[in-house]
Parts: sequence; C-alpha cells; structure tokens
Amino acid sequence: MRAMADLTIFCDYRLNPADLKLLQDGVAPHRLIVPREAAATVLANPEPDPAFGEADVAFGQPDTTSILGSTRLRWAQITSAGITRYDTPEFRAAAKARGLIVTNSSSVFAEACAEHVFSFMLAQARQLPLALRTRVPHSSPDWADVRAGSRCLKGESVVILGYGTIAARLAELLVPFVMKIAAMRRTPKGDEAVPTFVPGELESRLAEADHVVDILPENADSRRFINAERLGWMKRGAIFYNIGRGATVDQDALLASLQSGHLGAAWLDVTEPEPLPDGHPLLAMPNCFITPHTAGGHARENESLVRHFLDNFRLFLKDALLRDRVI
Amino acid sequence: MRAMADLTIFCDYRLNPADLKLLQDGVAPHRLIVPREAAATVLANPEPDPAFGEADVAFGQPDTTSILGSTRLRWAQITSAGITRYDTPEFRAAAKARGLIVTNSSSVFAEACAEHVFSFMLAQARQLPLALRTRVPHSSPDWADVRAGSRCLKGESVVILGYGTIAARLAELLVPFVMKIAAMRRTPKGDEAVPTFVPGELESRLAEADHVVDILPENADSRRFINAERLGWMKRGAIFYNIGRGATVDQDALLASLQSGHLGAAWLDVTEPEPLPDGHPLLAMPNCFITPHTAGGHARENESLVRHFLDNFRLFLKDALLRDRVI
Repeated sequence: MRAMADLTIFCDYRLNPADLKLLQDGVAPHRLIVPREAAATVLANPEPDPAFGEADVAFGQPDTTSILGSTRLRWAQITSAGITRYDTPEFRAAAKARGLIVTNSSSVFAEACAEHVFSFMLAQARQLPLALRTRVPHSSPDWADVRAGSRCLKGESVVILGYGTIAARLAELLVPFVMKIAAMRRTPKGDEAVPTFVPGELESRLAEADHVVDILPENADSRRFINAERLGWMKRGAIFYNIGRGATVDQDALLASLQSGHLGAAWLDVTEPEPLPDGHPLLAMPNCFITPHTAGGHARENESLVRHFLDNFRLFLKDALLRDRVI
Repeated sequence: MRAMADLTIFCDYRLNPADLKLLQDGVAPHRLIVPREAAATVLANPEPDPAFGEADVAFGQPDTTSILGSTRLRWAQITSAGITRYDTPEFRAAAKARGLIVTNSSSVFAEACAEHVFSFMLAQARQLPLALRTRVPHSSPDWADVRAGSRCLKGESVVILGYGTIAARLAELLVPFVMKIAAMRRTPKGDEAVPTFVPGELESRLAEADHVVDILPENADSRRFINAERLGWMKRGAIFYNIGRGATVDQDALLASLQSGHLGAAWLDVTEPEPLPDGHPLLAMPNCFITPHTAGGHARENESLVRHFLDNFRLFLKDALLRDRVI
C-alpha cells in the first residue's frame, strides 16, 4: 500500500460537476488537479499543460509530450478505447523503459460498441434503411423486392479483424445465430472465444465471409489495412463494417468497391476525417451507411469512465494488476 | 399409409415455375390442381374456386367458405404465420367436428420475424435512424445528444405479448443480452423457454418493461388489445414493437401516446390498413418507425414454404403429427 494522501491525479477529461465530484470524492484524500482547458476530443493531441509535471497519475487524454517529459508520472488511464497517439514503437519503448503503465477504457465501451456493430449487421440483414422508407401494398413488385432482399443472419459467416474486448463480446452476442466466426489477431494468445487466424491467412478467410467487421486499432500496421487488394479478396456482395478507426480503410478503394457492386454495402461508425466533408462521394452512396462515431455511446458514459478509473485507482493503490492495461 | 396416387392437392398460392415444379414433383404421383387466380395476399379472403371441392389437401390461403363447404378436405396448410380468418370460434368448432387439420407456416417465418424485431430493438437502442442522418464533429452538442441517447440492451427488460415459435426464437436471441424477459400467454403450457404470465397480470408486467413486443395473432380476444389503458400501463419512455397484426393495436391511442411522449418510440412492421394511407398521422411521427410487413421476408421464401409443406405432406401420408398445427 502506498502512503496515503501523497498522490496527485491530473484529469484533463471534460466532466460535468456531478461526475467531477464523483472523481474527486473517489480519489480523496489524494489531490486532483484539473486544467482550465479540458481535452475536447480523443482524436487530437491536447496542448501540454504546465501542471502536468506534478502528476503521479493521469486520467483523460494526456498529450504524449507531457507524459514522456514527466519524471513523476507512473500511470496514465486513457478515456477512450482507441489509443492511437500512444500506440507507437517510440512511446511504447519509452514507457517500458520508465515503468509507466498505460490503461485504456475498453471495458466501458465494449458493450455499446459490440451492440452497435451488431445493430448494423441486423439492420443490413433486415434491409431497415430501405424498408423504413418503403410504403407499398402487399405483393407489389417493390414489396417483393424488400422481402427477397431481406436476409437472416443465422448460419452466415463473419470475419472479425482485430480481437479484443469488443470482438469477444460481439462473438458472445452472435452465439444464438450459429454463425461461422473467425477473428484475425496479430498474435493469437490461445484465450480467444472464437477461432483466430494470423494476417497471412487473410485472403482465404475474406473469400468466405458474408460479413467483415473491422475493429482494428490505428497504428503503423493497420493504417489503410483495408485497401483495394483486400477488398478484392472479399466475396461479391459481402458487407463491410468499421467501428475501429477510419484510418484503417483506404476510403477511395472502399468507394470504388461500393460503386462497382463488389461490396454489397458498408456500415461505418468511423471515417477519415470525422465527419466527412460536404460533398464527399461516400455520403452519396446508397449502400454506405455512416453513424458519427457513436458506437461507444451510452447514457451516463462519463460516469462509467470515472467509475472504471476509480476501480483501477483502488487496484493501483494496492499495486495490483490493472484492468484494460495496454502498455 | 394411405393408398398412393389418390389424393388431390389444391394450391392457390402464387409460385414461380421453379417452386411450382418443386411442389408438383414433391406431391407426385398425387394430383396437384392450381386455380387460374392465385391468392394475392394473406390479408384478404379469396373468391371461392369451383375446383376446390375435389381437394383432399389445401395449401395456400384457401377461403373459409370453400373449406367449410367441402366434404373431402382433410388438411389445410396456410402459407402464412397469421391465420386470422380461420381463427374464429365458429371455424375452429366446425373444423374440430369434421376432423379437419389446419397447419400454418410459422417455422418458415420464425427466424426472419425474430431477427426483424430484434433488429428494431437494436436500431432503437443504438439510435440508428437519428445517428445515420447526423454528421457532426466530436464533442458538438448534437454529437453528445446522439451518444447520450444511445443505449445498451444488456440488462434491460422486455415483455413479449403472445408466446409461440417467434417468441421462443426471440428469447433465444436475447440470451447473451441478459435481459429480464417475460411472455404473456393466454394459457401457459409449461414448455415455454421464458417465464410466462397470463393476461390478468399484464398491468404490473407492463409497468416494468423497457421494451414491449407485440407478436399477437389477430382474433376476437386480441383486436385492439393495445389500447389507451394498456399503453398507459407501460412505463414512460418504453418502446413498443409490433410484428403481430396491425389490428391488435388501437392506432389512435398509439398516436396519442407517442405524441404525449409517454411511449418513447414505436416500431411497427404491421399496421391497419397496410400500407397506411397518405397523410396518416403516424407517418409524420418522428418516433414511429414502420416497415411494410416484411418481417418474415427472406431470400427464397416461397421455396421454403413449399419445402415446409412437402415435409408435412410426407408426415400426413404416414398419419404422423404435423408441424405447426394450429387447429
């Protein structure tokens, strides 16, 4: 057990007064410091804050320069599932050399993200975007088209790119649908809930999949991972989903595949940039469906983030293993 | 075993040449007769057909007058899950008195119907109709609204009205969501996969449900079952789904409940009439989502109907118990 009341926690994540109080009460008697300008988004590196140097623990979206410049910091918990700006060989090496622990908030978003991509899969199978705007009599040709274009997920096949907390939960949700599931993982660990394969086997796996779900984090290996060649490996009519990061997809290649009719449809919660600018050609594609990076959203999200941090903070005080450790 | 080649099968269901050939080959050497005008919809009673009197077996949407007027008919298989026009005390009594068997095609539609209403539940939870038309930057107020309005189904509660093949399958699909599920059944049989309750307990059950799923067949007991009083029993913000029959809902009361904000939203695959006429007020409600009676739709639906009939036909020839028997 560390000495009480001697830690400083720096939080740059924007919280409402109730959640801030929850955090403050939860870390007391340790000291909480909050910069004037809280981080606005997970997608941009914030400006360094002079107070950061006093922190033993950071919670939020701390900038990498401040983290690496600090001689005190021992643990940073990131308030997102994605950790792109920390996920570089340089940062990982520096953190390891100093014994810095980095955790993310995967657990907080896993359920919502898994349900979100699953809602995409079912909405596509049941043709919801088309059916919801179709008002036609029984037995009319339009009616027959919607019915005949509707599918059941039961028995279809899915390839998941990137195996982590979200993929594991998605696999659980799919159990009653008796789908053929396989997940790509850079380094399978043997603890996965579904059969895994390594990137080298991707071509044959993609060729068999009715559904391809991208949950890849963004890093040097994954940038533009879904390119023209790999889209070509997917079978004609396959449906592509992305709830990972927009940068993992070559959007020009995606557009071409949707335009040619090779891909059946794309459902994206992430794009590059976010949001797509006016006039972006993907916005005009009738078989491209985009939600604005809301896959992880749920009521009282920030409260969940604070509670998850406090759970880990108690473990940290006991020198126990932290949940969602990524570095 | 009945004598071979002595049965006449009457089919008034409109089939394409391939499915008709499947049927013809499947019943051979028995005789198949097809009227000139096949039934166009499950929702209207067709005109009596003079050839019907020769039939031992009917497959399709045979009119009740012809059935009850026939002295030969021993079995009718209905090509829908709903059997409204046969589900009257008079018809049931007459069928029973004559030993007439009636089966429906629930099995053919159960998977698609269960997946369809489940797609509604997830689309609502993940706010898909709103999210798909929202293109906003991170941390903008609109973005925060979509995220905060998004929910996870996990741990929520659902009441299913009407327990049959579809409800049983829906309950299976919901297992990984750890939802609190209860189903209303007129006469619980003890073989249900979820806890059941009788209509008399409805008030307290509705008061607890986040989701209310109507899978009621249409009959004298169920007509306008969802009325102003029962909508009032639902908790504020509850979501109502109907994939049963439009006539089970008092649509004026539904509209009022949606307008007042008592019901959170309604997702309907069935209405009365179908489709709703131009200018119907439900069409203008932003929290009412309607698909055009396509819940049961799936590729090669008619082929599935024919195969289901042929499976039962082989059982019928052996005097075995038929699947999906309803009378």
